[in-house]
Formats: sequence, structure tokens, C-alpha cells
Amino acid sequence: MSESFRDLLETFENQYPNRDYTIQIVCPEFTSVCPKTGQPDFGTLTITYVPDQRCVELKSLKFYLQRFRNEGIFYENVTNRILDDLVAVLQPRRMTLVAAFTPRGGITTTVTASMTSRHGDAPAA
Amino acid sequence: MSESFRDLLETFENQYPNRDYTIQIVCPEFTSVCPKTGQPDFGTLTITYVPDQRCVELKSLKFYLQRFRNEGIFYENVTNRILDDLVAVLQPRRMTLVAAFTPRGGITTTVTASMTSRHGDAPAA
Amino acid sequence: MSESFRDLLETFENQYPNRDYTIQIVCPEFTSVCPKTGQPDFGTLTITYVPDQRCVELKSLKFYLQRFRNEGIFYENVTNRILDDLVAVLQPRRMTLVAAFTPRGGITTTVTASMTSRHGDAPAA
Amino acid sequence: MSESFRDLLETFENQYPNRDYTIQIVCPEFTSVCPKTGQPDFGTLTITYVPDQRCVELKSLKFYLQRFRNEGIFYENVTNRILDDLVAVLQPRRMTLVAAFTPRGGITTTVTASMTSRHGDAPAA
Amino acid sequence: MSESFRDLLETFENQYPNRDYTIQIVCPEFTSVCPKTGQPDFGTLTITYVPDQRCVELKSLKFYLQRFRNEGIFYENVTNRILDDLVAVLQPRRMTLVAAFTPRGGITTTVTASMTSRHGDAPAA
Amino acid sequence: MSESFRDLLETFENQYPNRDYTIQIVCPEFTSVCPKTGQPDFGTLTITYVPDQRCVELKSLKFYLQRFRNEGIFYENVTNRILDDLVAVLQPRRMTLVAAFTPRGGITTTVTASMTSRHGDAPAA
Amino acid sequence: MSESFRDLLETFENQYPNRDYTIQIVCPEFTSVCPKTGQPDFGTLTITYVPDQRCVELKSLKFYLQRFRNEGIFYENVTNRILDDLVAVLQPRRMTLVAAFTPRGGITTTVTASMTSRHGDAPAA
Amino acid sequence: MSESFRDLLETFENQYPNRDYTIQIVCPEFTSVCPKTGQPDFGTLTITYVPDQRCVELKSLKFYLQRFRNEGIFYENVTNRILDDLVAVLQPRRMTLVAAFTPRGGITTTVTASMTSRHGDAPAA
Amino acid sequence: MSESFRDLLETFENQYPNRDYTIQIVCPEFTSVCPKTGQPDFGTLTITYVPDQRCVELKSLKFYLQRFRNEGIFYENVTNRILDDLVAVLQPRRMTLVAAFTPRGGITTTVTASMTSRHGDAPAA
Amino acid sequence: MSESFRDLLETFENQYPNRDYTIQIVCPEFTSVCPKTGQPDFGTLTITYVPDQRCVELKSLKFYLQRFRNEGIFYENVTNRILDDLVAVLQPRRMTLVAAFTPRGGITTTVTASMTSRHGDAPAA
Repeated sequence: MSESFRDLLETFENQYPNRDYTIQIVCPEFTSVCPKTGQPDFGTLTITYVPDQRCVELKSLKFYLQRFRNEGIFYENVTNRILDDLVAVLQPRRMTLVAAFTPRGGITTTVTASMTSRHGDAPAA
Repeated sequence: MSESFRDLLETFENQYPNRDYTIQIVCPEFTSVCPKTGQPDFGTLTITYVPDQRCVELKSLKFYLQRFRNEGIFYENVTNRILDDLVAVLQPRRMTLVAAFTPRGGITTTVTASMTSRHGDAPAA
Repeated sequence: MSESFRDLLETFENQYPNRDYTIQIVCPEFTSVCPKTGQPDFGTLTITYVPDQRCVELKSLKFYLQRFRNEGIFYENVTNRILDDLVAVLQPRRMTLVAAFTPRGGITTTVTASMTSRHGDAPAA
Repeated sequence: MSESFRDLLETFENQYPNRDYTIQIVCPEFTSVCPKTGQPDFGTLTITYVPDQRCVELKSLKFYLQRFRNEGIFYENVTNRILDDLVAVLQPRRMTLVAAFTPRGGITTTVTASMTSRHGDAPAA
Repeated sequence: MSESFRDLLETFENQYPNRDYTIQIVCPEFTSVCPKTGQPDFGTLTITYVPDQRCVELKSLKFYLQRFRNEGIFYENVTNRILDDLVAVLQPRRMTLVAAFTPRGGITTTVTASMTSRHGDAPAA
Repeated sequence: MSESFRDLLETFENQYPNRDYTIQIVCPEFTSVCPKTGQPDFGTLTITYVPDQRCVELKSLKFYLQRFRNEGIFYENVTNRILDDLVAVLQPRRMTLVAAFTPRGGITTTVTASMTSRHGDAPAA
Repeated sequence: MSESFRDLLETFENQYPNRDYTIQIVCPEFTSVCPKTGQPDFGTLTITYVPDQRCVELKSLKFYLQRFRNEGIFYENVTNRILDDLVAVLQPRRMTLVAAFTPRGGITTTVTASMTSRHGDAPAA
Repeated sequence: MSESFRDLLETFENQYPNRDYTIQIVCPEFTSVCPKTGQPDFGTLTITYVPDQRCVELKSLKFYLQRFRNEGIFYENVTNRILDDLVAVLQPRRMTLVAAFTPRGGITTTVTASMTSRHGDAPAA
Repeated sequence: MSESFRDLLETFENQYPNRDYTIQIVCPEFTSVCPKTGQPDFGTLTITYVPDQRCVELKSLKFYLQRFRNEGIFYENVTNRILDDLVAVLQPRRMTLVAAFTPRGGITTTVTASMTSRHGDAPAA
Repeated sequence: MSESFRDLLETFENQYPNRDYTIQIVCPEFTSVCPKTGQPDFGTLTITYVPDQRCVELKSLKFYLQRFRNEGIFYENVTNRILDDLVAVLQPRRMTLVAAFTPRGGITTTVTASMTSRHGDAPAA
């Protein structure tokens, strides 16, 4: 299994824990490598979360995401893995990750995963 | 009745079956043939689904859709048939297919079908 | 009262009556005549419906709509009349008609009517 | 207090009172005067309503709105006043008025008021 | 702790307190300073509220926001602080503040906070 | 040969004949009939001219263009014929007419003709 | 003949007269009155000039343009008149004025005039 | 060498041969096959020409272009070949063909060829 | 007279001096202060130049532009002053500066200056 | 000095050498590394050329550009170096390369270089 980059994520204390508010972070410069073809993939990640005690430090998030630059990983897996890492480190009240990749072979794929969506509680497709 | 292309669809194992998450695939290069006029039709297919145990492999999806290139079939039927094929092969938790065709005679048609919409449970029109 | 064009509408059998699915038809080339000024009106009609046993045949719909070309009729009335004609012929499970007209005197009007909205069951304005 | 322009609004009979349907009227050429600075204000009014027995006649609406051209009145007040006038004359089933003004001092203001929103029944902000 | 600018905010009496209506104010010229790097931040603030007895006077709001021009403060904190100031001065029925900042290091951040969202009542992320 | 509508065009005196200036008129509501299929055509006409002694009166231009509503005429011919009529009536210093029609059979056509382009003096294609 | 508003235009000294540079001013809130119908007209003025010894003061330009608010004047004439006033007051090296009015009767008009275009020196139409 | 489709192109007589005017035809539904991979290619063709004695008949152009549907041919060659066919049949005064294909492997290609560009007379790149 | 910030601009050696090539730098976060009202101004600067021996270092350009943050200076002057500073430090072969400011009082101003435009050699207005 | 990737570029024979025509290739997925900060850069390359005897093979171009993925190189240098490589391999009649990078520190840079622009023959800046 591939190396974990989770330790690169740094956090700072949420100064307004009594209020549920939303932080949205858009990262249009995400790139990883397709494990099957060895070709680079490109996408835009949109992270939306309601912080509890901790917020993610943006510079550390940038370095964390850059570690996928030469990592071979499928669309579906990278989306779920980044969501898992952020949830583990931040323990937010809510979190959704949308990963929109660029077209390949005339086909464009977007993967959306939420921390709160367990099996049996599916969002309307 | 026309030949089935369903066997062309390949799948891979969903690595995150405990989470309900959404995969959206946009295919702007769909083309088939009008059975009445013999003229080509063009459209954009948008497949949105929550996988259960299997995800659709994108290259096989591309080959499957290309098989309609010289197939004579009406808008409404092609939409429902592709939805049926994908549901049969993937057995997803949710699936919706939107097929937006290009204008003909100044009129543009879009057909939307969902795996979970049975008669008596219609979406708001 | 003006002549009915309803008989021009042809239908074909819905091949997927067990599923509630949606057909949206956009007609940006609608034109009629203002009964007060005699000046032509122009608009885009968007018909969205869930078919029951019958679907509307698109060429006949085009000819039906062309019959309004030299017909004097107000915005509100033409919208409701076309909705009534389509509902009578198709008996759909759901149908909404949006008629968006071009600006006149710096003012733009859009009329939206649904088969299922009876008085006392108004949509949120 | 300023003169009422309400009498300028003319109406015609709704031919489809048994159906709740929606009429949306967009007026991008609204202008009034700021009572504090004497400077002209410019905005786009969007009126959305479900008629009961009467619809507003568009030419009279245009003349009514033109009467504000040299009238000194604040954003919030002009929005509520026009809503009140239209509700009084039309007695619609539903009505919402959105007034979107152009930027002043780098700040843009939009006021939205609905006939059905009484205190204690506020829309989500 | 930094100086409060709250006293700069002026209000005027709401003339329509019996109706819940919405005022939206967009301020695309907000700028403050990053406390860590000393570099200027730029963003667009969108304030949406339902007034109770008082509305915010726009010129005073402009002067209030300009006071952040040379103030060192993080994205999350400035959003919550401005919301707190506006709520304290206006005591509105509802209020939401969206602060959308420009990209830094290829990453764009938007913070959204609402007066009515207390912990345990989080909006869907 | 079809009836001439040229007499419908009215003009007024150019108040600034000593200056070469440009008037551009955009008519997005042009409609005529295809002489082969009997089907209506729709297009946007853009007239750009430098007036000499006369300018075209806009209301008369509108009535003139409306006369093509039920006239059977090809794209190329209607463009050249309207240009000829306007040139005959206005005798402008320069005039160009662009006629952009809506798609038919997946193909969109635009015809551009200028008063000053004689054979042997072709514009760059 | 109508009153001249030219005296309202104030100027300040160009600090860089040795360089030919361009100032473009866009005024989207211009309104005057149609002398034939008494109805208000609305348009966007774009003034582009190369200053010589004087630049136009923006606040005085705003007040000057506001004087047309209740002035009856045709599109072609208001464009040429404003150009003449600005040229008289500024004596610029170059100046062009584009006046783009909103649609009337489905027809949109834009008038473009330049200080340097005399008869016999027409721009390409 | 592949079969010629040139004979499918029909023409009609240009009614205005004394004027150089421009006809632009946009065909967004062009599709052929990559001779190397066997995969379908998709593109938008834009044909711009000044007719001499003949204009291209649009329906025959549509049928001609459809013949490439299952033809294996490279981007550069299909562009030059269609240009050659149209020039041979129409003998226009000027003609340019722009072929803009959809992305493949993250790369988008557009080929532009003109009848009048011979070697040594290259357009500015 | 105000302090010069020119010394903040750093340069690096152009590695390709034998080729005339163009560097365009867009700075949408420029802000200064109006010397008359004390209010902040906001604008987007676009610098386009052909380097000779030196290129501007981007970080130093950012710090240089930030020095105008609390500087009182008019639109026309700030544009010409920044152009003069960049020309003095870089001695480029060509340079143009476009400064597009945000609306004030409903009026938007853009100033464009080029190193090579001396009086008597004005660009077309 | 860094390794040359030029040998990765493959070419094929131009089938239409007697005609000067243009091929434009847009590559929105270019990424390299800043040699100063070690941070990744992202940009869109647009290559426009008139081929002589050879055209660039697109798959080899993709592999060539991917080799910059982990290469430390400045904006200005990467643009000129890729232009030099393509010119050396293709010896085209004309070639221009535009490299538009994503924003850094609020500043966006685009570099444009042409094969035919030698010093003393600079394009207008």
C-alpha cells in the first residue's frame, strides 16, 4: 500500500467553535498519476467543511496535495483517501470533497464524497 | 430487436463500499442514428451514480457507447436502454442518466431517467 | 373564439411506461401576434413532462407551434392554451410549460404553468 | 408623504383562474433618485406572481414605474412600496419583488420582499 | 486584542418592520492584511439579512469595512468578527455573511457564517 | 418576382452630415419562410452604416422587416435584397449587413454583404 | 434649440502631455427621453480619448450627463452633441464616443462617432 | 487511396455575382475516425467563402460531411481534403476552412486552411 | 512630491535577448487612495512588454505595487508613473500599461499608456 | 544545464506542403517546477504553426511536455526553450508559442514568443 501523507496536514484552533460555519477551499491545481497508464491526471478539488475545534492550515494543505504529484492512484480512491485524511486530522462537524477531473478520451469524471454519507444513507443521485 | 451491447461494459471493485459517494461521468461525444430519417443524432450523456460493490471502468464505457454510432434508435429509448444496461451491470445504489441532444428543426430535446423512479413515484416535472 | 390546433399534435407509444422519466423540449423559435397591437411576439417555450402511455412526436409539435405564427393571442393565454392542448393529447403524469418572451418596452415577461397546479395548491412565488 | 402612483396600474381579467400559474416580469430600466444625495439610482426589478382574478397590464406597469424617475426614495422603501401597490391592485395569490440596484461606492444592494412573508415567518437569510 | 470598529456602523429605522424581507449587500472591494505574512488579502463580502427594527446605513458600512485595510486578521476570524459586529448593531431577524477571497498559492478560500447557526444546528456541508 | 417592400422604409435628415459616424442596428427577431420547405427561418440582422444625408427611421424599419414574415426567400437572397433596399433608400456612405440564421439540420449559416464590395474587390475570406 | 449643458464640464491639467495615452470612461447609467414618444431611453456611453492639455473631471462629467435625464433628444443627435461638447471643452488629440442603447420594439441601436472622422474620411462600415 | 465524396456536393446559382459577399457555414456535428486508433474524432467545421457563380446547397453539404462518419483520416488531411472538394465544386473567390477538434489526451487541435494561401504566401502564425 | 518606490523593483537577466518576445503580467489586486476624497481605489493593472537585457522579478513587482496601497494619487498619474518606473528600470524594447479601475458613481475608467507613444504619434482613439 | 527532451518529439510528413495552412494545438495541462521555490507551476500552452515538410505527432508532443513535470525552470525560459525545440525538429514556416500560467501572489503571467521575431523586428507591445 502507498505511503500516507496525512502527517503533512497542520491545523490551527477554531476561534469560533460555538458557531457552525462553513469553509470552502478550491484547489484547481491538483495532479496525480493514473496507475494503469502512468499518464498524469489533472483535477480541481473543492473541500467544504464545518470546523469543530480545528481548521486546516492552507500552506500545509498545499504541501499535502502536492505529494500526490507523482503518486499512482485512481480517481475514486484519491477522492476518498483525501477525505479520510482530512476527517482524521480535523474531525470536522461536516465535510464534503468534490474532485472534478479533466476529460480523457472524450469523457469527464467528477467524484463527490461526504464524511456523513454512510451506506444506507445515500444522497439522491 | 437490436443487439445488446451490455457485455462490453466492464467493472472494477468499489474500494469504499461503506460510504455512499457519487460518481458523475459526462460523455459529450455520444452519437446514434435516427431510425426514421437515417440521419445521425448527437448528444451529451451525463451519468450520475452511487456505486455499491462495482464501479464502471471508463474505457469499456467509451467502447460501449461507441457501439451506438451506427445504431438506429429514438431519443427516449436510447436513454432508457443505456440506463437499464448500466443498472444491470453495476447494480448501483442510485443512478440517473441525462441525455441532452442537439437541436433538430429548431427544437432541442433532453431526456432524464432514474433507476429509482418507478411509476407512481414520479419526480416533480 | 379562435380555431383549435390540437388535432395537429401526434403521439407515439411510450416504450418505458413502468418508469417515471422526464422529457424536456426547448423551442426557441416560437412566434405569435399581439392581439392588441398586431405586432409579432417572440419567445422560447420549454415543455417538461413525465410521459404516461404516449409521447409527443416532435415534428407534429413543430407544425402545431407554427400555427400560432399569425395568431393573435396574449402571453398568459398562449401559455395556458398550449399546456391544455398537450395535456389533453398526452395525458402525461406531470407537465410544466415555461414561455419566456423577448423584451417589449424595456420589459421582459415569462409565464410558467403546470398541469398539476390547481388553485389552492400554488407554487411558491 | 409622497404622492401615490397606484392609480396608474391597470389590470385585465385572468382567463385561467382555476390554475395557479406564475408570471415573471423583469424591468431592467428602473430609475429613481436618492433622497439624501439627489443623485439618480438605477436598478432591475423582477416581479414574480401567481395571479388570482386579475393580471397587471404591462404598458400601465411601465408608466407606473416611470413615475419614480424623479422621485426621491430609498432602496428599501421603493421595493416595499411597489410591492404594496401591486398587491393592492392585483390581490395575487403570491408575489415576490426583487430590486437589484447598480453599485455605489463599490457596494451593490439587492432588496427582496414577498407578499406572504410576515414577521415571524421569515425566509432563510 | 485588536481595536473594535463596531462604533462606525450607523443604522436607520426599518420602515416595513411588519414584513420579513431580505437585503443583500455585495462588497467586492474588501481588503485586509494576513497577520502571518504581512501581505494584503482581497475578497468579496456578501451580507444577506432580514432586518428587524434597524437597517445598516451603506456609507457607514463602507467606512467600517475600510478600517480593515491595514488590519492583520485571518480569513476565518474576519468573517466571524464582521458578522458579530453587524448582528450586535442591527439585531436582525436573520443574517448570513459570505467572504470569498482571491487565490493564494493556487488555492481559493470562501468562508460562510450565519447568525442562526449554533453548534448542533450545522448547515449541510 | 416577389413584391417590393422598399416603400415602407422611411428616413429622416442626418443632422451631422459633416461627420462620418456609424449607426449599428441589431434586429434579433427577423423571420421569413424557406421557399423550398415552407418552414419558417429565424435570424438576427445587424445593419451597420455611415449615413450621408438620411438616416433610417427605426419604426419603419421594423415594419419593413416584418413584411418578410410570410415571404418565401433563401438566406443569400434575403440578405442581398435587404441591403439593396436600404442602400437605395438611404444612399449611405458605407453599409454592411450581417444575417445570422439559426441552426437547421445541425448547420448554422451567416451571410455578410457590404454595399462597397463589388466583384474584384473581395474582402478577405 | 435646447439648452447647452457644456458649461457643467470641468477639466484638470494633464500631467503627462508629452505622452499620447488613452483614457476610456464607461457610463452605463445614461438616460434621456425620446422626443417623439416622451418615453425614457437608456444606454451605455463609452468615451475614449487621448488628452492634450486637459483631462475631464469625472464628477463634473457625471453631473453633465445627468442633465440629459429629462431632455428630449434622438439617439444620433445625443451622441454627436456629447462628442461636440467634450471636444470643445477638452480639445483632445483623439476622441471616440460609442452610445449603445437598450432594445426598443425588438431592435437595438448603437451610434459611434469620432472627432477625427470628417466626411470623405469615413471609417470602414 | 480513399473514395471521393465530392460528387455528393450540389450547388445552386449565385443570384448576386456582381457583389463580393461572404457566406459562413458552421457544422458542429462533424465526426470521422482516427486511422491509427480506430477511435472516433469529433469537431466543428467553419466554412467561410465568397461565392463566384455557385453557392453550396446546404442539405447536400450535410450529406457530404456525413460520409466521413466511418472514414479513417487524420485531422490535417481531412481539413485540406474538404477544402479541396469545396473549392473544386464551387470555384469560389475566397474560401477558408477551420476545423476545431475536441480534446484528446488533454490536447486540443484546430486546423485552418485557405484556398488562397499557397507556399511563400503564408498567413502570420 | 511623493516618495519614489522605483528602487523596490528588481530585475533578472533576459536569457533570450536575441528574440523579441512578449511578457504580459496581470495584477488584479492593485489599490491606491483617491487624493481628493481619501477613499480607496481598486483596479487591475496589465503590463505588456518586450524585454531587452532585463526582465522584472515578479515578487519585487508585487512589493512595489503594494507601496501604492496608502498612497494618494489620481488614475491618470498612477498609470503614467508606474509605466515610467518600469521603463526606467527595465529599459524594455516595448511596454504598454493598462489600468482598469472599478466603478465610481456609476462610471468606470481605464487608462492605457505606452512607452513608445510620444505626442504627435498618438494611437487611434 | 538541464537535459534536452527534444529527441522525444516525433514528426510525420505534411501531406499538403504546397499550401500554407495553420495548426493550433492547445495544451491546458502543462506543469513544471519553479527553480527558486521548488513549488509546481501550472499553465496552458498554445502552439500555432504553419508546417513546412513535417507536422508534430501529438502523442509524442504530450510525452515531451510531460518531461517538464519535475523540471525546475522559469516561465520565460520554458517558453523560449519549448519554442526552440519545436522549431529545431519541425522547421516550420511560422511558429508562435503562448504560455499562460496560473496566478501566483495575485499576479498572472503570460509569455508569448515567435520563431520569426528577431531583435529589431519586435511585435507591437
